[in-house]
Amino acid sequence: MHLDDELRALDAHYRSMPPVAAMGIAIAGREGDTLTLRAPLALNVNDKDCAFGGSLVSLMTLAGWGLVTLRCRALGIDADVFVADSEVRYLAPLYSDLEATAALADASGWAPFDAALRSRGRARVRIAASVPLPAGGVATTLRAGYAAIARG
Amino acid sequence: MHLDDELRALDAHYRSMPPVAAMGIAIAGREGDTLTLRAPLALNVNDKDCAFGGSLVSLMTLAGWGLVTLRCRALGIDADVFVADSEVRYLAPLYSDLEATAALADASGWAPFDAALRSRGRARVRIAASVPLPAGGVATTLRAGYAAIARG
Repeated sequence: MHLDDELRALDAHYRSMPPVAAMGIAIAGREGDTLTLRAPLALNVNDKDCAFGGSLVSLMTLAGWGLVTLRCRALGIDADVFVADSEVRYLAPLYSDLEATAALADASGWAPFDAALRSRGRARVRIAASVPLPAGGVATTLRAGYAAIARG
Repeated sequence: MHLDDELRALDAHYRSMPPVAAMGIAIAGREGDTLTLRAPLALNVNDKDCAFGGSLVSLMTLAGWGLVTLRCRALGIDADVFVADSEVRYLAPLYSDLEATAALADASGWAPFDAALRSRGRARVRIAASVPLPAGGVATTLRAGYAAIARG
């Protein structure tokens, strides 16, 4: 799949983290205001031959982290992005490769985040992410809060 | 550190999962009704030189999973243990090796879990886990629900 320069840089950033590289995580694509990551089952399998819960959480958390990071860059603000809290539901086992899509969860859109980051140099936002099952339905869902803090 | 046969078997079980082996996770010990796992920072570092959130969640989730698995074995019941849901708080960055301790979170103790697993072959329980900071305080906390289902 073709990734533009911005997504290639984010993809390289992900892979620079040893535990992320070990999971084989890569950007699958960006569509509208969502970001999708993927990872092969073989590197993320548990003792029941399905996807390991820790890998599912990592993939969803990183998808949200990437979405917030891309937003900061779109605003032209160099910021550190941190995950602050998360809630995860494990709904069904996944016996195929992992794919997680993240989207904004705040009904008010990005405007409050953008305004706070621009005016105060720090902002919080809530992201929703999920991992679909290949035959329909959902394996896991995540809702997480992220903080962005402008550098220097 | 000395591990008894039961903990050595659990340790081998952890390491049989590729993503868990990649994180270098090992059992640190069992004390009373708690289980502690550890993992080296070098294999679990993020882009800010501190512990990767996904590794922290994985370590806490696996500590809870191990505690419930040991309980099933103590009851003499061969059961599959699944994580059902979790809530995580990321409170402070951790710049040293990771250690997660899991303990029962239900005020009523193990009795309801034991009774349900014995009588109905399935039971649920809530576990609390946390990762301490070396100088005191806590890096991350988790509360998670687990289900155990007796096999065959």
